[in-house]
Amino acid sequence: MAFGLLNTVLEKSETLLGSDHASVVSMNLFVALLCACIVLGHLLEETRWMNESITALIIGSCTGIVILLISGGKSSRILVFSEDLFFIYLLPPIIFNAGFQVKKKQFFRNFMTIMLFGAIGTLISFAIISLGAMHFFEKMNIGDLTISDYLAIGAIFSATDSVCTLQVLNKDETPLLYSLVFGEGVVNDATSVVLFNAIQRFDLTHINSTIVLEFAGNFFSLFILSTALGVAAGLLSAFTIKKLYFGKIKHSTDREVALMMLIAYLSYMLAELFHLSSILTVFFCGITMSHYTWHNVTDKSKVTTKHTFAALSFLAEIFIFLYVGMDALDIEKWDVVRNSPGQSIGVSAILLGLILLGRAAFVFPLSFLSNLTKSSPDEKIDWKKQVTIWWAGLMRGAVSMALAYNQFTTSGHTKLLGNAIMITSTITVVLFSTVVFGLLTKPLVKHLQPPSKKPSTPTSSFHEPLLNGDGSYIENHEPLHRTQGQSDYILEQITLRLFLSTPSRAIHHYWRSFDNAVMRRIFGGRGVSEVVPGSPIDTSVRQLWTEDVENKEQYAEP
Amino acid sequence: MAFGLLNTVLEKSETLLGSDHASVVSMNLFVALLCACIVLGHLLEETRWMNESITALIIGSCTGIVILLISGGKSSRILVFSEDLFFIYLLPPIIFNAGFQVKKKQFFRNFMTIMLFGAIGTLISFAIISLGAMHFFEKMNIGDLTISDYLAIGAIFSATDSVCTLQVLNKDETPLLYSLVFGEGVVNDATSVVLFNAIQRFDLTHINSTIVLEFAGNFFSLFILSTALGVAAGLLSAFTIKKLYFGKIKHSTDREVALMMLIAYLSYMLAELFHLSSILTVFFCGITMSHYTWHNVTDKSKVTTKHTFAALSFLAEIFIFLYVGMDALDIEKWDVVRNSPGQSIGVSAILLGLILLGRAAFVFPLSFLSNLTKSSPDEKIDWKKQVTIWWAGLMRGAVSMALAYNQFTTSGHTKLLGNAIMITSTITVVLFSTVVFGLLTKPLVKHLQPPSKKPSTPTSSFHEPLLNGDGSYIENHEPLHRTQGQSDYILEQITLRLFLSTPSRAIHHYWRSFDNAVMRRIFGGRGVSEVVPGSPIDTSVRQLWTEDVENKEQYAEP
Repeated sequence: MAFGLLNTVLEKSETLLGSDHASVVSMNLFVALLCACIVLGHLLEETRWMNESITALIIGSCTGIVILLISGGKSSRILVFSEDLFFIYLLPPIIFNAGFQVKKKQFFRNFMTIMLFGAIGTLISFAIISLGAMHFFEKMNIGDLTISDYLAIGAIFSATDSVCTLQVLNKDETPLLYSLVFGEGVVNDATSVVLFNAIQRFDLTHINSTIVLEFAGNFFSLFILSTALGVAAGLLSAFTIKKLYFGKIKHSTDREVALMMLIAYLSYMLAELFHLSSILTVFFCGITMSHYTWHNVTDKSKVTTKHTFAALSFLAEIFIFLYVGMDALDIEKWDVVRNSPGQSIGVSAILLGLILLGRAAFVFPLSFLSNLTKSSPDEKIDWKKQVTIWWAGLMRGAVSMALAYNQFTTSGHTKLLGNAIMITSTITVVLFSTVVFGLLTKPLVKHLQPPSKKPSTPTSSFHEPLLNGDGSYIENHEPLHRTQGQSDYILEQITLRLFLSTPSRAIHHYWRSFDNAVMRRIFGGRGVSEVVPGSPIDTSVRQLWTEDVENKEQYAEP
Repeated sequence: MAFGLLNTVLEKSETLLGSDHASVVSMNLFVALLCACIVLGHLLEETRWMNESITALIIGSCTGIVILLISGGKSSRILVFSEDLFFIYLLPPIIFNAGFQVKKKQFFRNFMTIMLFGAIGTLISFAIISLGAMHFFEKMNIGDLTISDYLAIGAIFSATDSVCTLQVLNKDETPLLYSLVFGEGVVNDATSVVLFNAIQRFDLTHINSTIVLEFAGNFFSLFILSTALGVAAGLLSAFTIKKLYFGKIKHSTDREVALMMLIAYLSYMLAELFHLSSILTVFFCGITMSHYTWHNVTDKSKVTTKHTFAALSFLAEIFIFLYVGMDALDIEKWDVVRNSPGQSIGVSAILLGLILLGRAAFVFPLSFLSNLTKSSPDEKIDWKKQVTIWWAGLMRGAVSMALAYNQFTTSGHTKLLGNAIMITSTITVVLFSTVVFGLLTKPLVKHLQPPSKKPSTPTSSFHEPLLNGDGSYIENHEPLHRTQGQSDYILEQITLRLFLSTPSRAIHHYWRSFDNAVMRRIFGGRGVSEVVPGSPIDTSVRQLWTEDVENKEQYAEP
């Protein structure tokens, strides 16, 4: 019935206001599927295994099957994947948001370790996968792949996708681990793309020491210039917004938000223009903006930018997984490899093996190196953490897909066996690693990093009273929907913790994080006689307020 | 120098990661221009004449001239205008935001008048412009325009663009006028597009009473179905978000924002799919969401959605004006009409005259009719208001451009004289009306509706303590950047107004709108001895808090 309707609608070739009707149908379906992913993802989140990426992948695959059946085996996609779409519209918000929400203190404290993992580690993984692929695939007779193809394979399968892991790790319980996995993920993405670009740009058929040196020089100059551009764009936005709006009253919020979006996007596009690594640029633009610009905007802009960037990034991620799921069933790709299923499976298995090996080859040695430089046992990476980091980077995702499309589907040679096998293998590796490795992540992390039994300490819970583990705000004050009894209970809990544990810091945050109703109920209502001017509590609160105003930025950062 | 660089860059046809280099250059330029529009628009806003639309138009034209010079007279555009871009990406956020931010109380109070102006008025204007065009143009021998072309001209030039006027009118000083102009603008847009679609769909070569009746039936069913779809989508979002997230703690804000965006967009696309008026649908979806969904989300989501939608709408508007400015210089369009400048000027002048006449022909009679039904003099539309309303709708903008492109550039007959003249005349009318009429708006409004001398009354200023005239938040609490002396001054002002004017409503809002620092300084700090439990102030505040919780929604609505 529904299929019949859809068919009829699809068959109508009428154009409405110049836009193609079929594309309107596709967009409707796609937007509806995105909604379904969010809703189902939320409902399934309670379970032990699932997360939103996997939900999107599965919904995408199911839709692919349905479309395949409706169209009689002709197509499984409702949108044609283009790298432009991916690299120009979907990736920037994800990476920018990563930079914008990163915990800068943790990030910069572990900067060396993160760079070690993200840059050197990716290079090691790249070398192992490239060499391994060269070694195995040349024997398998899967069509002629050039040296540049093999290097590209190394870069493609070095790009990790740590979304699944980050959804499971707790930012507050294991801050070191979280910042390592997060930081490495971003630097790794950038490194892979920079490597990939460098490979495509160099003539690598005749490798000699000059070319290797030039390659290395190119790589590092890209790294530095991209970072500098990102920081410059961030500073420009801070300067502009400060000059234009700071302290003004009218109109500012909408324009501030619009300007921040535009400048972030501009930094990405400028990096593309100058052939830099746009991922690195927009990442550092995000960090700079959250460190400087964010403190020059109104409170409303702070909340708005924080959540808008997160929401856009979230949408882009779901979009990608949904698409990858749908695209996995695209019949055209499988046609060429249909006659050699063994080869295809073999290639995928070898690649998965190389990924496991390539990652192990740098996580454990580099962790050892990193531990040598740390004195405090808290900062050392114990073996459980090492295994978690190793596992966290085994998933392959959208970046791998986009790079593989770029390398193996250009200029019409899609029908070559070697290229077709590489595309289908990439899909297999992405699906397998995301679904199988992804599903095992939650139990593994729970096993290796059991959640602490004790309730979170006042320091950590008050340290960022408005932030959840994932950087979203905790909605801890909804006076409208809370009964008197509930308010009383919350108030008692707070007051208890507040005055019994770490009063000096806690009171300051307490002031900032609870709404007027609660405030009033302590100081205006019940407890007013206790807070007389000059009393110890009054004095300490006043003192803290004055002292901490300078430090406020530090606590309020996104 | 800069031109040379740009030229070199443009000439390089290198592709980067599969995307076309020239398009990257264009996007960079376009994003940079958007930033420039925001910054310059803000700086010029202080002056008596300018606003951001005009700034964008002028910057667009200047850029067009520069590009024309660089490319040696070949092209003036850096992006090709497509109606898809306009109707699928730029218009939805603008109209949705209009619905989302509309003052619902005012809108529904004046619902009949707004519908009278927006629907009946647009029909009158449409009839006059169509008949006038038919009468004059047939004598001018400008190529063969069919009856359907003449009717389309009527619809195209009935679509007003009240952005300029709304930037000038003050929501608080003239609420009736503002809501009339605003409401009419939206309903008018929708009516024009519905009319236009109806004209394109019907065979209007042989008009008889059956066709006219069918046409009218079609028109009204479109109107009702579109509204119903929008309301249904809004209710769906409210229901989903309430069921999924209400009262939950984790993750909710980003997902709520994402879901609201997706469902709003889905309603627009569904309307396109079913050949309804997507403008009306998304407008009523916006109203429903702000009335129901918005109250089921977290406080952070409230702030975020409010400003995100406003920022996106703002960006889309600037984008359109920038583009129209650039497109006005497109050489190809002017080539055909170059030999008949007199005709082109004549047509534009006639159209401008018809627009003035067509609008006068319904504003004054319908205002008279509307006044008959009102008893209170405050609700009547006096002649000054009538002139303002008449003037407010004289500008023509992006909708007219998009419809004109649709009617006169389809299926390759762009080279026909009649079509070319209609396109160039549309551009002329849009530029002339926006710049000339637009520039005169501020002085005219100031003359007809002089800002009241008395300071705004406590009722109005406390009624929406967090909202500016344009619906943005006033940043009235920035404890970080305020000295002790400033705080004291503000505090005194507040306290004075608070206790001397309208205590009952003001205190409630006072509680909600000022930050903890100020709160503390009255009740925790200096004034604590005055607010003892059981004292009159304490009692009245407690009582109000309890009473007003039910009414809170009413005040807090966007």
